Amino acid sequence: MKMSEGVEWTAHACAVLAALPRGIGLPAAALAEFNYLAPAYMAKHMQALARAGVVESVRGAGGGYRLAKAPEKVTLWDIVVAIEGEEPPFRCTEIRQQGPCPGTDFRKPCEITAVFRKAEAAWRAELKSVSLADIVIDVAKKQTPAHRAKLSEWLQEKLA
Amino acid sequence: MKMSEGVEWTAHACAVLAALPRGIGLPAAALAEFNYLAPAYMAKHMQALARAGVVESVRGAGGGYRLAKAPEKVTLWDIVVAIEGEEPPFRCTEIRQQGPCPGTDFRKPCEITAVFRKAEAAWRAELKSVSLADIVIDVAKKQTPAHRAKLSEWLQEKLA
Repeated sequence: MKMSEGVEWTAHACAVLAALPRGIGLPAAALAEFNYLAPAYMAKHMQALARAGVVESVRGAGGGYRLAKAPEKVTLWDIVVAIEGEEPPFRCTEIRQQGPCPGTDFRKPCEITAVFRKAEAAWRAELKSVSLADIVIDVAKKQTPAHRAKLSEWLQEKLA
Repeated sequence: MKMSEGVEWTAHACAVLAALPRGIGLPAAALAEFNYLAPAYMAKHMQALARAGVVESVRGAGGGYRLAKAPEKVTLWDIVVAIEGEEPPFRCTEIRQQGPCPGTDFRKPCEITAVFRKAEAAWRAELKSVSLADIVIDVAKKQTPAHRAKLSEWLQEKLA
């Protein structure tokens, strides 16, 4: 069971967008460069984020993206849903209703599915508990002055 | 992000094996029948469980499988690992080490990967907390007498 690599790419792209002043975006090519990705790969996944309402297009030279909401309002779960969809990882085909010994009461999920759903809820809760704003603060706290300066210089160039 | 359907199939197959007296197994064809599956599909996934040490082959007419450990010792996590492997769902390619603004300290996972790993740990903990014995007890508590009788009759026929 693997998530699309696009989750990592878009999470990092969104973390960069979250560190910009409100309403400011970056050209799609800059986001690709930041992630060391081919622009077409990055573009495809940013479009998925836009469809999910996490980012929005910025018009103008080169085009680009900015966050569609405040960084406090976007969680890592929103990014997972945008790229992977909302369907739970465990697939239940209701085996209990088939075969030679079907049960009779199917209103609640079976005992096996119930455990997987509980595990998925715990996973989801962790991803919902961390916003892009939290990530930005956490990164800033650990960043060296040299790294901060380098990032700032790169952003100035791309925003120019 | 989807798990293999084999996780559902093998979880149900293991729950049936866990309900049998210790050391007793079932023909692979019976496990397929129970899950309403083509025998080849079931066989492939039971082989994966055997490689992971969750079940072991039973020799004799038709061949089959029994649990390799007590039902208290096998969790749903063991089944997930047998079918899906142990690699975590979130793929981290260390984006932070690439691109125009790499950091310098890579001893700990980046802030984004750290959240995904925490979420995966919560998911794993839930799946590790429930054994096949728990599932069998939970099913037995909710089972109607008619369903219990039907299952018992089917098992007697398959074990004969």
